[in-house]
Amino acid sequence: MAHVLVLNAGSSSLKFGLFLQGPGDPQPLATGLVDRIGGAARLSLKSAAGEPLLKTDLPADQAATHHGALHAALSEVETRFPDAAITAVGHRIVHGGRDYADPVELTPDVIAGLRTLVPFAPLHQPHNLAGVEAAMAEFPQARQVACFDTAFHRSHPFVNDTFALPRAYYEKGVRRYGFHGLSYDYISGALADMAPTLHAGRVVVAHLGNGASMCGMLAGRSLASTMGFSALDGLPMGTRSGQLDPGVLLYLLEQERMDAPAISDLLYKQSGLLGLSGISHDMRTLEGSDDPHARQAIDYFTFRIRRELGGLAAALEGLDAVVFTGGIGENSARIRHQVCTGMGWIGIELDKDANAANATVISSDLSRVRVLVIPTNEELVIARAAARLAA
Amino acid sequence: MAHVLVLNAGSSSLKFGLFLQGPGDPQPLATGLVDRIGGAARLSLKSAAGEPLLKTDLPADQAATHHGALHAALSEVETRFPDAAITAVGHRIVHGGRDYADPVELTPDVIAGLRTLVPFAPLHQPHNLAGVEAAMAEFPQARQVACFDTAFHRSHPFVNDTFALPRAYYEKGVRRYGFHGLSYDYISGALADMAPTLHAGRVVVAHLGNGASMCGMLAGRSLASTMGFSALDGLPMGTRSGQLDPGVLLYLLEQERMDAPAISDLLYKQSGLLGLSGISHDMRTLEGSDDPHARQAIDYFTFRIRRELGGLAAALEGLDAVVFTGGIGENSARIRHQVCTGMGWIGIELDKDANAANATVISSDLSRVRVLVIPTNEELVIARAAARLAA
Repeated sequence: MAHVLVLNAGSSSLKFGLFLQGPGDPQPLATGLVDRIGGAARLSLKSAAGEPLLKTDLPADQAATHHGALHAALSEVETRFPDAAITAVGHRIVHGGRDYADPVELTPDVIAGLRTLVPFAPLHQPHNLAGVEAAMAEFPQARQVACFDTAFHRSHPFVNDTFALPRAYYEKGVRRYGFHGLSYDYISGALADMAPTLHAGRVVVAHLGNGASMCGMLAGRSLASTMGFSALDGLPMGTRSGQLDPGVLLYLLEQERMDAPAISDLLYKQSGLLGLSGISHDMRTLEGSDDPHARQAIDYFTFRIRRELGGLAAALEGLDAVVFTGGIGENSARIRHQVCTGMGWIGIELDKDANAANATVISSDLSRVRVLVIPTNEELVIARAAARLAA
Repeated sequence: MAHVLVLNAGSSSLKFGLFLQGPGDPQPLATGLVDRIGGAARLSLKSAAGEPLLKTDLPADQAATHHGALHAALSEVETRFPDAAITAVGHRIVHGGRDYADPVELTPDVIAGLRTLVPFAPLHQPHNLAGVEAAMAEFPQARQVACFDTAFHRSHPFVNDTFALPRAYYEKGVRRYGFHGLSYDYISGALADMAPTLHAGRVVVAHLGNGASMCGMLAGRSLASTMGFSALDGLPMGTRSGQLDPGVLLYLLEQERMDAPAISDLLYKQSGLLGLSGISHDMRTLEGSDDPHARQAIDYFTFRIRRELGGLAAALEGLDAVVFTGGIGENSARIRHQVCTGMGWIGIELDKDANAANATVISSDLSRVRVLVIPTNEELVIARAAARLAA
């Protein structure tokens, strides 16, 4: 039986999922994670239903590299699924640059092209490509497929693709790529199935997790995103700043005498909800805290979502639906409530009970704008693409 | 008779205006400009009606410093207005920090405090203060009054005052100060006179000139601005970038190996309309051009205004009026048309003829949101404050 492996390789982690190909959507069999690669790496495995199957430390030789970690993970998968025949591996790749609006098979030429994008995503792209190399060595016969976080946004018009910099920067690739594209792709497809009329209209999707962004969709295609060139822009996140006056970076450079690595560490790892609250990057912790700084961090988070919602509605020339997704979007009734309160001017009226119950439709029957909660599934988008390109 | 002098000292220029104090608003008598200070400085003078009175080169000793330039300007003013008794000098000061929500008399302590803000506005604050020193030497008996571009925005709530950085940065003054406050102050007052019901509501003011920003006002007070910590953020401007992903600055530092002065020069002087068009920073030139890049620069400018309009409406929880002001806002029917087209979703319907005629009210009779054009007058706001504090 043909199987698809989904891989998401980060700087010190490797997420993976095994799917069974079939006539319809690929069916998940198991998911797993190796974290702390390069250190005291651990492997954990769960069933498709989320039951823990295994949690174990890796031996030193396997713990040291992505290749070793992948090998350890696959040995475990093969033991539990002896009939698995992996014909395709789907990779999550953060950056597809300006060329890739769809998944693509990873040939040597494609990989060489993706390597030229490392300067645009130095914190992620090299690790993604290390995962590709490990998978190629492990499965020389399987098709390797790249799925890009940027691809869904390549439909942006010029005004949403450029910054107001000298044109040479646009030509060399300093553009508003947008990210979380695999999640938006999934939501667009789910909405087309469950509510084709809304899908055909003007929809803002809020992907709210430890990373967070919003996407304005017209007829299911991305027209605008709150993320720009990097994964720093737009909404505040767990530890990332989101939108920031460029003058603040000049201040940090010139007045505080910080260098680029220090600023990068500040904006990627010490800012966002963690920086504002001084307590935690985790929304659940902040929601459980009585500290006024925790509340201010939550208020800032929801305020920026509201402001971007207005801005994206302007890009779409109106609003028919809002979709919440991602860990916070799917689970935090408080965040959704704060975002949607006082938004009657744009046509949103929340159903408080439905919202508290994490229902699929959380707007009232009389709300002009529909508000939905749809759990995202990025792995399935990758598995679908890998299965399709391997067929 | 008591007179008020208004001064706006830039890096190499000195704008000034002479006003006659009276029972009502101060009356303008003449305005002037010394530019190219430090080089081949020139002095020009106009009547209150805008007729040129003089244009002359300054002798080398007066051309070298702000003090020399001010002395030359005043000699000319005294010759033409021999009865002028200057009892107060009002200074435009770009940065009042977190403390000043109103104009203030410039005592040695106040000046020392303003000097500590130089790191927040290194390109402007030192020149503003040089103008203060020159005026104090020239008019030791007059009251010296500071009017701040930031003061009008000190009413922002926390969510519009902070970035999502570690809290220590907020405490040390890395905040969203907002600028163009003197212009917004004038518009708020003008609106209170001409349309008190609108003034009491939710108003977005677009100050569109070579510098450009927008302000969301609730009951005449600033609730939010598109500008943040510096004069770089928000809308694209003649040569300034406006909103920019902080990741772009990290890219310029780490990948392009640019240093802070080079990035500052890029973002303040080579970006915005000039950078995107490759043609000019001047909207009139771009509007007269057939080059597709000129059109793209205009489209980007108006698109960002629309997007910020939606965002500010969210901050205000709705919209009752939009006011255009500043050189572009007051004079470009095309820009106003592009901003307001396709904004029916937010309640804007333009009257094309009124817009083409630069009328005061340019929305249609049936438009739910009123759209106005009100010429700004920052000098009058400064003159009023100086006269008031000198009384």
